Amino acid sequence: MKDPKLVVGLMSGTSLDGVDAALVEISGSGLSIKARLRHLTSIPFMPDVHQELLKVASGNPISTQTISHLNFLLGALYSEAVFKLCQEARVNLDQIDLIGSHGQTVFHQSEPGLFCGRMLVSTLQIGEASILAENTGITTVSDFRPRDMAAGGKGAPLIPYVDYVLFHNDRLGRILLNVGGIANVTSLSAASELTHIKAFDTGPGNMVMDGLVRRFTGGQKQYDDGGEIASRGKILSSVLEELLASPYFQHPPPKTAGREQFGEDFLTAILKGNQTASFEDLLCTVAELTAQSIAGAIRDFILPQAHMDQLIVSGGGARNPYLLQRLRTALAELELLKSDDLGVPSSAKEAMGFAILANETIHLHPANVPMATGASHAVVLGKVVYGNNYLKLRDGSWRLAEGTLKEKSE
Amino acid sequence: MKDPKLVVGLMSGTSLDGVDAALVEISGSGLSIKARLRHLTSIPFMPDVHQELLKVASGNPISTQTISHLNFLLGALYSEAVFKLCQEARVNLDQIDLIGSHGQTVFHQSEPGLFCGRMLVSTLQIGEASILAENTGITTVSDFRPRDMAAGGKGAPLIPYVDYVLFHNDRLGRILLNVGGIANVTSLSAASELTHIKAFDTGPGNMVMDGLVRRFTGGQKQYDDGGEIASRGKILSSVLEELLASPYFQHPPPKTAGREQFGEDFLTAILKGNQTASFEDLLCTVAELTAQSIAGAIRDFILPQAHMDQLIVSGGGARNPYLLQRLRTALAELELLKSDDLGVPSSAKEAMGFAILANETIHLHPANVPMATGASHAVVLGKVVYGNNYLKLRDGSWRLAEGTLKEKSE
Repeated sequence: MKDPKLVVGLMSGTSLDGVDAALVEISGSGLSIKARLRHLTSIPFMPDVHQELLKVASGNPISTQTISHLNFLLGALYSEAVFKLCQEARVNLDQIDLIGSHGQTVFHQSEPGLFCGRMLVSTLQIGEASILAENTGITTVSDFRPRDMAAGGKGAPLIPYVDYVLFHNDRLGRILLNVGGIANVTSLSAASELTHIKAFDTGPGNMVMDGLVRRFTGGQKQYDDGGEIASRGKILSSVLEELLASPYFQHPPPKTAGREQFGEDFLTAILKGNQTASFEDLLCTVAELTAQSIAGAIRDFILPQAHMDQLIVSGGGARNPYLLQRLRTALAELELLKSDDLGVPSSAKEAMGFAILANETIHLHPANVPMATGASHAVVLGKVVYGNNYLKLRDGSWRLAEGTLKEKSE
Repeated sequence: MKDPKLVVGLMSGTSLDGVDAALVEISGSGLSIKARLRHLTSIPFMPDVHQELLKVASGNPISTQTISHLNFLLGALYSEAVFKLCQEARVNLDQIDLIGSHGQTVFHQSEPGLFCGRMLVSTLQIGEASILAENTGITTVSDFRPRDMAAGGKGAPLIPYVDYVLFHNDRLGRILLNVGGIANVTSLSAASELTHIKAFDTGPGNMVMDGLVRRFTGGQKQYDDGGEIASRGKILSSVLEELLASPYFQHPPPKTAGREQFGEDFLTAILKGNQTASFEDLLCTVAELTAQSIAGAIRDFILPQAHMDQLIVSGGGARNPYLLQRLRTALAELELLKSDDLGVPSSAKEAMGFAILANETIHLHPANVPMATGASHAVVLGKVVYGNNYLKLRDGSWRLAEGTLKEKSE
């Protein structure tokens, strides 16, 4: 196989608003991989696509046709993201070796529930890889999560493997902090092995802050740009103390959080209990909740076990200087960096991650981290759909079923 | 790669009532493949699973959870079919090299329709291959149809490739007739090339006969066992003539038929127009419609273009001696055989087919027949999920990511 390879990673997140596409140059495979971002772009979903996705992901009744059509439609939209990426990066499609596509999660249940008389978990990502492989001509790996769940894991998080290959260091202990809606950490002690990674959700990331901004502005603002509003408030200590007493924070890892713990219900309870508090003070307090719950988790569950030197922040929260300042104060013993400082733009990490995971799949390397997902063993993730690039021969003809199908030149 | 290989083919059909599992010994790949059925078994779906599948496939609103859970549940049930197959055939799981799983079709639309402002086709098969790969340890190929549709095909029929590798003959022209709900033919002229295959649906198979039996018996009988009832009736010539005048039969191939043309509406019209006719006579007449529409299609669209010697019947209709007798009379110039006579039990052909198609996939051979599906070109079908068998080394250890994951012995 060619080395280095050009691999595209595609990620569409739970906001259901578009897809990020990363062009990644990858050398090698396995834990000695070298990955470098060449270009990042994204395309937004049209409002009607966003609406259909919302319907499917919301749990409301929909027709099978809607899911089936969305699966094919997203495959087409993802292909367009690849075209745009190549155009912007001035790379020809036929220089790309591989695509890794996370797909759009429309259902994920990692706690077993009864269904037709059996206890079941399941996950469903859509965005048909066959369409990507056909439209781009490039072999495509998709559907990374089901294989980990089949092996008894929660299908998440899958990024710890990526964190390891991108950030592990022989001399420095590093904690990777991703602040999305939920905040999660991956701890990499110096010269650690992949099996010793610890990764878990610390609790709220931007979810509670963003929710509060939307409530107070009636949806006019979606988030507190740069943490500017929070920085003008003061911390309401008794409120903060009460919120930090939530049993989630005391619970030792592994643990995962979501909208069930820190979504609209959590927000409603805060607002109900503090009707006289100002917007600024409440926002400042939940920003502190975010910073303190992250710092507490690191201090309780990571630092006692391994020496750590750096805290490397990615995700939307990395663009909130106020939050970063509070984290720096709460964890003064760690050097705080953004993943950008180490060559991995914080907004690109997940899309880059699925390029890296796809590369592992075609090399038949397991890439889930059982310590992080709870799987009983490591497995090769994903499903491979062959593009025409795997069939292309040097003379420009195609490898087809033994001499019977007409040869087709490019 | 090992040769011959033991490959399992899994097929669950549109009746939504269970899964057929075929153990197939395959030598080689491509058009020189040799395939021999070692064992066939099936497991029925429990009534609650059947009910949930009916809901999903019927087009009624359902939750995304139902599809997602059914996808994982079918993966588990398919695994159990593989276990049962191995047990009955006295073969160990680790002797199996590959699984090809068609999955359960819950949606299929091959005519473009408007969705979110785009003209779309799509198809959706469920039965999570990751569960199969994990539970059995065997590399699994699934989702054969989307890749053909991505290339502009109808995603069906995929069996012509299988018909070709199993039945093509240097000296004899053969027509493969499969009589399921719908009847379809594949024509293989002597020493023909794969690209010259003609394959299309001739019209009703058992669908109209079975429907009539259910209507007249109030659902007490599902079909006319051995054609016994039809054989006691007489053909109502004017009714037959009128039915054969349906434009579908005159339409030249490629063409596909389904419940839209020959389902309940078609049946209701027959019953309405012939309220005084006896059950026996009407059944005899629609049996004749079935035989004559098949014979007519062969005479109009196949025999003028190529010399044919044999008509080889498979599918449920092959177990209806009355229908076979009518076909023999209508096509006296052809030798009528059952596929069983050539070593392929008529009930096993489809499950065997997906074992053969999976074998082609892992050899990177395209296996759709563009002349049959309408695809713009041949493609490698399916998605590959790696089982642990691909990682197992000779010493019983496993190939894992470069020396960092603990070795695990079997």
